[in-house]
Order: sequence, then structure tokens, then C-alpha cells
Amino acid sequence: MKLLIVGGVAGGASAAARARRLSEDAEIVVFERGPDVSFANCGLPYYIGGEIADRDKLLVTTPERLRSRFKLDVRTQSSVEAIDRAARKVRVRNLATGQVYEESFDKLILATGAAPFRPSIPGIDLPGVFTLRNLQDTDQIKSRVNSHVKQAVLLGGGFISLELAENLARLGISTTVVEKNDQILTPFDKEMTSPIVEAMANKGVTLLLSQSAESIEQSAEGLSVCLSSGQRLTAQLVIFGIGVRPENKLAVDAGLEVGPRGGIRVNDYLQTSDPDIYAVGDAIEVNDVISGEKTQVPLAGPANRQGRIAADNVFGRSMKYRGTQGTAILGFFDRTAAMTGASEKVLRRANRPFRKVYIHPAHHAGYYPGAEGMVLKLLFDPTTGQILGAQGTGGAGVDKRIDVLAVAIQAKMTVFDLEEMELAYAPQFGSAKDPINMLGFVAGGLLRGEHPQIDLETVLADSSADKPFLLDVRTAQEFANGHIPGAVNIPVDDLRSRLQELPQDRKIAVYCQVGQRGYIATRILVQKGFSAANIGGGYKTYKLFYPAK
Amino acid sequence: MKLLIVGGVAGGASAAARARRLSEDAEIVVFERGPDVSFANCGLPYYIGGEIADRDKLLVTTPERLRSRFKLDVRTQSSVEAIDRAARKVRVRNLATGQVYEESFDKLILATGAAPFRPSIPGIDLPGVFTLRNLQDTDQIKSRVNSHVKQAVLLGGGFISLELAENLARLGISTTVVEKNDQILTPFDKEMTSPIVEAMANKGVTLLLSQSAESIEQSAEGLSVCLSSGQRLTAQLVIFGIGVRPENKLAVDAGLEVGPRGGIRVNDYLQTSDPDIYAVGDAIEVNDVISGEKTQVPLAGPANRQGRIAADNVFGRSMKYRGTQGTAILGFFDRTAAMTGASEKVLRRANRPFRKVYIHPAHHAGYYPGAEGMVLKLLFDPTTGQILGAQGTGGAGVDKRIDVLAVAIQAKMTVFDLEEMELAYAPQFGSAKDPINMLGFVAGGLLRGEHPQIDLETVLADSSADKPFLLDVRTAQEFANGHIPGAVNIPVDDLRSRLQELPQDRKIAVYCQVGQRGYIATRILVQKGFSAANIGGGYKTYKLFYPAK
Repeated sequence: MKLLIVGGVAGGASAAARARRLSEDAEIVVFERGPDVSFANCGLPYYIGGEIADRDKLLVTTPERLRSRFKLDVRTQSSVEAIDRAARKVRVRNLATGQVYEESFDKLILATGAAPFRPSIPGIDLPGVFTLRNLQDTDQIKSRVNSHVKQAVLLGGGFISLELAENLARLGISTTVVEKNDQILTPFDKEMTSPIVEAMANKGVTLLLSQSAESIEQSAEGLSVCLSSGQRLTAQLVIFGIGVRPENKLAVDAGLEVGPRGGIRVNDYLQTSDPDIYAVGDAIEVNDVISGEKTQVPLAGPANRQGRIAADNVFGRSMKYRGTQGTAILGFFDRTAAMTGASEKVLRRANRPFRKVYIHPAHHAGYYPGAEGMVLKLLFDPTTGQILGAQGTGGAGVDKRIDVLAVAIQAKMTVFDLEEMELAYAPQFGSAKDPINMLGFVAGGLLRGEHPQIDLETVLADSSADKPFLLDVRTAQEFANGHIPGAVNIPVDDLRSRLQELPQDRKIAVYCQVGQRGYIATRILVQKGFSAANIGGGYKTYKLFYPAK
Repeated sequence: MKLLIVGGVAGGASAAARARRLSEDAEIVVFERGPDVSFANCGLPYYIGGEIADRDKLLVTTPERLRSRFKLDVRTQSSVEAIDRAARKVRVRNLATGQVYEESFDKLILATGAAPFRPSIPGIDLPGVFTLRNLQDTDQIKSRVNSHVKQAVLLGGGFISLELAENLARLGISTTVVEKNDQILTPFDKEMTSPIVEAMANKGVTLLLSQSAESIEQSAEGLSVCLSSGQRLTAQLVIFGIGVRPENKLAVDAGLEVGPRGGIRVNDYLQTSDPDIYAVGDAIEVNDVISGEKTQVPLAGPANRQGRIAADNVFGRSMKYRGTQGTAILGFFDRTAAMTGASEKVLRRANRPFRKVYIHPAHHAGYYPGAEGMVLKLLFDPTTGQILGAQGTGGAGVDKRIDVLAVAIQAKMTVFDLEEMELAYAPQFGSAKDPINMLGFVAGGLLRGEHPQIDLETVLADSSADKPFLLDVRTAQEFANGHIPGAVNIPVDDLRSRLQELPQDRKIAVYCQVGQRGYIATRILVQKGFSAANIGGGYKTYKLFYPAK
């Protein structure tokens, strides 16, 4: 067996190491265009910011280590330029010497990755304008940062841009993030990004939504970025993080199928349209396990997993890749945003029926010092209760809850299973009723009909004559501090004695601060013959949708 | 409907609140012997230590709040002394006035809890000798701590004792923990407690295993605790935390069935042997979902859940309690020990076949600063791979992994599902191959036969002539720093060139530091025709079993 692997970072390196463990005798060659293999891609922003002080930490392994430990023929600075499928060989260029040669294969794994998109706008190639993909980009950006950067402009409001924004802000660089959509972190639903937007403002990072860069010019102060709004931003550093494109040229030139967004098409075994050629990582399109649709997930976890699976299949083990459920996480200073499964946007686009709930729990028992808040959103099937997606934003403990929900999605569990989960509780770690259990109670109560709920958007969109009567059951003080326009205040503890103030012939939409008192009030009202429903997540959810009000 | 609830803390308070939400019109009376309802039981040690500064924080809710918000008839300092099942009424004593009266019921929920066991040894009733159950005990202990305690003796090495040990040590009190078994935290397997034992030593807490208190005497310096070994310990504070006994007297006197360990027997709907009487919380016996056996779990999470379910069933909702999987967690300074499902001990006792793996990962990417170590142990079915139990000890992130595994157990997932889990990865939160994935890889490799593994105990117990050849594949430096007696050192990177040094006719047991290099070495050896197996978890696991060596 002679196995060639094109690309030596996440998916390629995983495939190579796995291949050697499966076969001591196979001839395994890894071609990597750059000088490094298997570097810590996800650490690059933190090295730029100095959080990771030592560059060597970014080198997960070295070509030497792969040679000595895994007996791999690792060829860095080696670009594979063409695949001759009929002859079963590739053409390789040694970038150091310029030498071009051919190498034959029995099996080939493509792990070519994805390249950051660089728009064809004037000035894109000026010094000081970057994208961030590898250690060489990182070195250049860091070198510029260390010289004379007071202001930076980051194009794109995705994960990498926000990680860069944190790190540049830590260095005291005045940083502006420009995003062409009307929200950052587009895989999330917009309201769930509000706490991160708030954190950006608190940390002095400027955010411009619904704008994009139209040109970049040199100026006295460095660079001037001209936006679609006409606004001009001065910066000495500009980084584009507006998405990546699969590196599919090798595959396309060889006549392998690619999807509409350029991802190399593979079957469940990660075989391309040529059964002797596999492809893994950021270069391929994969199945979304929730929607069943094809998608692209340029993340390290799936890439590593796919590399392993491709090697298994090369050596006849018949392993399937399960697909992706889009689990992702961002740390931004002390804030976290994480998600798994489908977003509300995606479900709406697919016309898939769903219900949703929001809760605003603390990450551990409130009576123990240091409890941090979060918001969790759960999306589920309105008939079966199957969990379709989850998002969380807040402080500590968001990652744990999203991981738990990722497993629940994988296991095709329902909201009723969440009610029964027996999670580890001591006051430093959680609550006797963990946020996960609470999600189950709120969603289960909705589906069983014992906790009627109405979405905030439905209430606010209703301008009819018989639109719901809006009842705020918080204290007078809370009401005075801010409430949803049009609401009437009757504190929950007074409700039983003030029922005569409520309309008998109109739907009543109840809310409190986070949903708990609203639930109790709704139960009282329903049992007393009123048509009532609770606005899930209460005023805190309203503030996610309308943070400025 | 007239519902009486005996006990107003976790299970009782949850039942009462749920009952009111289900029925505005039911008459609901809660009898609580003490002055408080629904206090934060799990916070008591931290209030004693001052970590929780404000006593009011421990009052999760108050009788007044339950009355105003839930229209509950809450009667504190009210002891229910007898149940007349035929007449459907209870006899109640008002502990404040001495008045005795009867109260009728349609349904009754017993949430009487469990009492700390006080052994009948001489001196047990001396001033300064305590158990810790409620706020009154807490006040007394705190008052004594504040006056004149230099030394404390904690009997029992369970969760509460260790939490108390942390808090007393923080106060500068010289603290000794005495445990009658040969390990602390008996729900865990002994080797998994080693990191906590080490932390105790580091924090100056003395641990005496395989000893118990035989008597307590007054002495010039306060109290003298005489141990089974003859050793005497001087202390001004002695607290017994050697287990709890279900408060079943009411139930037993009323002729309700109890189990062999005293837990009130209930069916899946939490009904006692009298269908109009339910029981919840620490007072009952429950099903262990792994072993199917009856057990007792005096924890707040299950109690709350059961209270809710009992109320559901009282109001005709037919909800089942799923049983317990024994999820539990301890924080000890910056260390965590957590578990879910069955331990190895329990599986051995039940003659249930299993295999196990250990891994020693960091809680997040090693290249990002602040990564903390942990050990994870996974127990699984040797045929199907179904996960039977998991334990983790270490620093940050143990709670997350045990929660993920708790869900996997609930969903009846296998080790192969762990390989596929798509968890949230950024370098602050985890690794591209999360510790959970690694558990799956190691266990899956074992079951598929591609990663032969042998348990350390099996190797060490074998004193036969053809016992395994012990091969240490770490570096010479690591080997010199400490190794398993009898091992021969060939670093993994030299192995391919030194195969001739290995015996062809004996089993080779390979190990490295944590298992990864041992795995690679095992793969090399097996493919070269040797009979080799990896000692899972490597030298670090050896050090868990033999921490002193």
C-alpha cells in the first residue's frame, strides 16, 4: 500500500498518524505546502495577542517527530499541483528547490483545507492588509502589531475576527469590527449575540453592522478603509475574516465532484467520486445531521475526526462519518457564546416546525459566591419534543451546558429526557435543578400544555384589536426600572386578589424577569379561567431582542 | 383535594410548589419540624468556613414566601408524630406550644429526609461533638469554631466531611479526617481518590484510614478522641459524618414497607405500600438504573426531582421516577472528584463483566495557558461497549466531562458514540480531540481489537514464570525519574530498530506516561508479530494505585 496525503495540518496529520498505526508496512507520504505540519490553528489569535507567549507551543508536532515516531515520509514546502487519476500519480513541486516530480499512489487523501476569502477590492494587496490562515500570516501580523499599530479594522464578525478583536484590544489597539450582515456570529440567532455585542462595547471594540469594505487606500496614518456606507476608517492593520473557500483546485482539475459552494463531494466513507481518493477537513462538504443538508464546517474537531476515518477506510475498516451538528464556541474576554444543532433561522428557512424556550440561569447555585449568569435557548420539535438545537451566551458554564445538549442531540433525546438528567451537583458546579433540567421543565411544560407559552415576537407583532393584554408580574420597583411598552403591572404575589382587574375576553400575555414568576402567574390565571400564556424568558429575553431600549 | 406534606426542605418544598402550580384550589399543608423550609443544605460547610458570608443566602425560600406566592399552609416547628391510615389523618405536635392536634388528608407525601448517624460510643453527647444536618447544627458548629477551636476531628471520609475539612483548614484549624474504610469517598474506586488524598496532604489535612472512633473524653485541651488503633486525637471540635439513616419511624409505625437499609419502599410513581401515601427524598430507597438494585441516594437533585414527580402523581399525571445513576461531585480546594454510573467495585460485586480505560488529559488545549490535568476512568460492557460508569479527578473541566458521560449513560450510549461526539472546541474550553473523544478512541480501539490493552492489576498480580515482559517506552530521562519495578526501557522512537531486544515467546506489557506512546508501541509490536498489550493510562495510572512509590 502506498498512501499519499495532501496537506499536513489537522485532517492530514490525523490521517497520517492513524494510517501508520494501522499499518507498519505501508508507504505513507505527507505533502505539505507550508513549512509546518499540524500547527495549532485555533491558537493563532492568542499568539498574536501574547496570551500564548511561546511560538513553539503552536507547533503541535513537527515533521521530525512525525518521521521518528510514525515513520512518515513528510515533505514540507511541497505543493501537489496535479492528480493524474488514470495513471494513479500526482505531480509535486518542491517549493524550496523548484524541482517538479511525480509520485505514484494506491490511495490518496486530500486534506487541502480552505483559504480565507480575499475580496477583489482596490487596495486588497496593500501592505498591512492580511488574512489569517497559518503561522506565516501570524508572524507577519504579529510583526506589524509590534511595530506601529494604533488602530485595526477587522472585516467580518465571525469567530476568528472576534478572537482577534479580543487580542488586539488587550494590546491596547483601537479595534473596529465591520460585519456585512445585521449581526455578528451568523450561525447564531441574532438575539443570542446581544451579550457579546454588549461585551464588545464594554471592552472598547467598535462594531459596525450591515457594512462592508469597498476599497482600501494608503493614507498618512497608514491605511484608510472605505466602507459601503461611505464611512472611512483609519487603521494600520486590516484583517479580512469574511469566510473561507475550500481549496478544491486539485480536485476540480482532476474531475472530482464538488458541491455548489465548492466543497469536495464525499460519501459517508469520505470517498470522493473516485473511490481511491478520499477527502477530509475544511475542503469537503459534509452532511448536517439535523437538516440533512450539505454544509461546510471549517473546524478542527471534525477535521481530525475525518482524517482518522479516511485512514480507517483506506485500510479496509469501513468507518462512516456521522456528519456534523455544527457545534461551535467563542470565548470573548470572560464571555462565552456556544451552540450546537440547528438555529432558529435555519429551521425557519427549512420550514421545519419547532418551538423554543429561553432561560436565564446562573451557572451554579446562587447562594455560593461567584455565580455567573447565562442565557440558554432551546429549539425542539413541537410534536415529539426532540431537541433540534441549542445556543448559550454568558459567563462560566456555558460550554458545559452546550456540550451536554450536543450529546442529547446526538442521542436524539427529547426535552423530556432533559427533565430527568442526573448531572453532578455541588454548589460550586451547578444547581440541584441544573439549567439543563430547567430547560426540560420549561419545554416539557409547554408541550404537555401545563405551561402555556407565547413567543415575544408573536406578542409584539400583533397589532390587532384583540391583541394580547400584556401583564408584567414583577414588583413595582422592577416595573419602574423598565418594562415592555404597553404592559400593566400586577406583582405575582398580589395576583390572586386582583384578578378582577384583568380582561376575561382577551388573551393575557404574562411576563416577569426570567420566566419563573410568569409561569406561576400563568398557572393561576389558567386555573381561574383566563386565557393566559407566559412569555418565555421574560424581560431578560426582551432585552436580548431590544438591548438599547 | 387535601394534601399534607411532611418535611419542607428539598423534596417537600419542591412537591408543595409543584402541587400548587397544578391546583389553585387544593388545600396544601406543609409540616416542618424545624424553623426553616427549603434551606441550602449543600451550602452549610461553606457557611461554616465563611466562603458563604451571609446566613440569609442559605434560606432558599421562607415560610412567608411560600405562603404569599404559593398560597401554602406552611407550619414550621410542627412535628408529625403518627399516621392513622385507616382514618386518613395525622397527629401533629406544635413544638413551640406543645399543642397536639389531628389533620385529615386525601393524599400524603412523606419527605422526612435522613438523619446523620451518631454511633453509640462513650462521649458521643459531649459538648463539642456534632453532626451536620440543618441550620441549627450549623449555627452551633460555627459558634464553636468562632470561639476556641484549634484542632478538629472529622469522623468519616465522605463528601460532607471533606467539604468540612476544606472549610476548617481554610480557617487555619488543624484538621484530621478519620475513615473506617481503606479509602475516602467510598462510592469511588480507591485509585481514583489518590489525587484528593494528595491534595489533603498538600493542604495540611491529616488523613487516617482504616480507623474509627471508639470513645470521646473530655480533656484539658477540650476533647480526646480515642481511635480503634489506640491513637488519641486532641480536638476542640468533633463532627461525625459517617453516613445517614432514613427517617422512617413515621412510615414504619404506620406499617408502610421499608427496605433492608431502612429506606421507605416506593414504586416507580413514588407511592408507598399505601397508594395514597407518597414518599420522596433521602427517606426512600430508589432503583439504581445501572445495576437494577435498590439503593439510597441522599442528594438534593434527586430529592427535588422526586418531589415534583410525587406532586404530579397526586394530581393524576402519572409520572415515573427513572431511578438514579449515582452522579455525584466533590470540590476540595481546587480539586474535583466526580462520578456517574457504576464503579468498578460495584460491577465486581455484581459479577458484571466490564472493561475499563484510564486517560490523563488536560482540560483544554495544552498550547493555551492554564491547562489543568485530570484522570478519567471509563467502565463499559466488554461486548456491546455500553457505558456503565465513569469517574474523574483533577482540576477544572472534570465536572463537564462527567456531565457529558452522565448523559451518555442515560441515553444508553456506547464507547463508539463517544468517538463521534461533536463537543464545543476552542482552546480555552477543550481540545479538538476532547477528553471524551479520547475515552472513546481508547475504549473503542480496545473493543475492536486494534488497541490491545491489559490492566495494570493483571500485570502486577502475575508472578508466574511466563508473566508479561514489562516494557517502558518513555524516554530514558522519564524512566530514570521513576518506573514500574521490573520494567525495561526502550523509548518508542527507538523501538523499530531495537525489536531484537524483545522476547518473541512472552507477552509484552507496554506502558508510557499516559498511554499514547504505549499505544503506538503496541501497534508496532503487534504488527511485527509480538504478543503485546498496552497498560492503559500508563505510569500515571500506576501512580494512582501506588502514590507513595
